[in-house]
Amino acid sequence: MSAKFVDFVKTGSKIVCVGRNYAKHAKELGNALPKTPILFTKPTTCYVKDGGFIRYPSITNDLHYEVELGVIIGDKASQVPQNKIMSHVAGYAIAIDITCRDIQEQCKSERIPWTMAKCLDTFCPVGSFVPSHEIDPYNTEIILKQNNVIKQQGNTKDMIFNIPSLLEYINRHITLLPGDLVLTGTPEGVGPLKRGDELHVAIPKFNYLTFLSMKDFV
Amino acid sequence: MSAKFVDFVKTGSKIVCVGRNYAKHAKELGNALPKTPILFTKPTTCYVKDGGFIRYPSITNDLHYEVELGVIIGDKASQVPQNKIMSHVAGYAIAIDITCRDIQEQCKSERIPWTMAKCLDTFCPVGSFVPSHEIDPYNTEIILKQNNVIKQQGNTKDMIFNIPSLLEYINRHITLLPGDLVLTGTPEGVGPLKRGDELHVAIPKFNYLTFLSMKDFV
Ligand SMILES: [Mg+2]
Ligand SMILES: [Mg+2]
Ligand SMILES: [Mg+2]
Repeated sequence: MSAKFVDFVKTGSKIVCVGRNYAKHAKELGNALPKTPILFTKPTTCYVKDGGFIRYPSITNDLHYEVELGVIIGDKASQVPQNKIMSHVAGYAIAIDITCRDIQEQCKSERIPWTMAKCLDTFCPVGSFVPSHEIDPYNTEIILKQNNVIKQQGNTKDMIFNIPSLLEYINRHITLLPGDLVLTGTPEGVGPLKRGDELHVAIPKFNYLTFLSMKDFV
Repeated sequence: MSAKFVDFVKTGSKIVCVGRNYAKHAKELGNALPKTPILFTKPTTCYVKDGGFIRYPSITNDLHYEVELGVIIGDKASQVPQNKIMSHVAGYAIAIDITCRDIQEQCKSERIPWTMAKCLDTFCPVGSFVPSHEIDPYNTEIILKQNNVIKQQGNTKDMIFNIPSLLEYINRHITLLPGDLVLTGTPEGVGPLKRGDELHVAIPKFNYLTFLSMKDFV
């Protein structure tokens, strides 16, 4: 079933994201641990592939990186229970949840959705499809380097809600379709991007991917 | 160009929604008037077509209807200015922004996105494609009846941000693709749905559409 998911960036219909799913990251941003998963979405116009550019929009002064493991849906899932949901997973991809931290804080204070912080073009740099049999969802390392310095080095074993429980929670009310991506939250170490920075992200046994923060973007 | 947009529900990649875009509606929910458009998104798994059912999920006790005019994008739009953006519109459709009002209030108090209030399956009942030359975006009536009683009767002339200014605001940072739908906000008169209710919505010179709230849904 793998071959057709190589193109999930083109065929998928949505990106569902989970916030505050690693305890140390929730703490570094001063947030309480969630009792249920915190969900938001990104449109597929956020995708950028290996070697691509991340926009630094003029509306923000605090653009952050958040490396995350992405889960790629294989078979349509609607109200599939936790003990059966992993058979609906086609594979995984490393991804970055690019976030205007200042705008997110403003949205929080205005009690409105985080759309202008999370959903802008180029705000989901993403790696290649890795078939599910290559990854242990309960014990996979994810790494982000900024200008060749390691800034985030987490492991999916530290998730508050593990992958099957996230997928169960989502697909109880939101149908997941083939090619959809679920971003599973970021470990600690998030931080600001500067214009012109180079980011490298990886699941270490696979290749590093490169993304560049644009020097100029209006 | 119209023919290929009849299927926008299948071909579109996203639904971008605008909150509090009619002053009397902002007031009825006790919200201040926005200084810039408030945006959120719904995934395309929210779509329901004429005659379809709206789920009443067990997680809510206060499911609301919000009738809205939807704008259907024709040509890809990225950073198109306000004075040129209307040539990127293919047409319009009446739609309902179904909302778990109690969960939305909880999300607001927790300062998190409204995903579990707005993005659930069946939460975007939508009408047929109406080509742009049939609609005056600055003066179009939209109506919602609940069990044959008119509950909402608004006019797009009362929008706080008109359609070109909304589209300009969105496409400055979020590329709009052919078939994408933009929901432009609801006029006053929103209210609770009961299980088994019948909703009819229309742009009056076109047909009424019928949607049914499910009697039973876990
Ligand atoms: Mg994140
Ligand atoms: Mg959202
Ligand atoms: Mg609405």
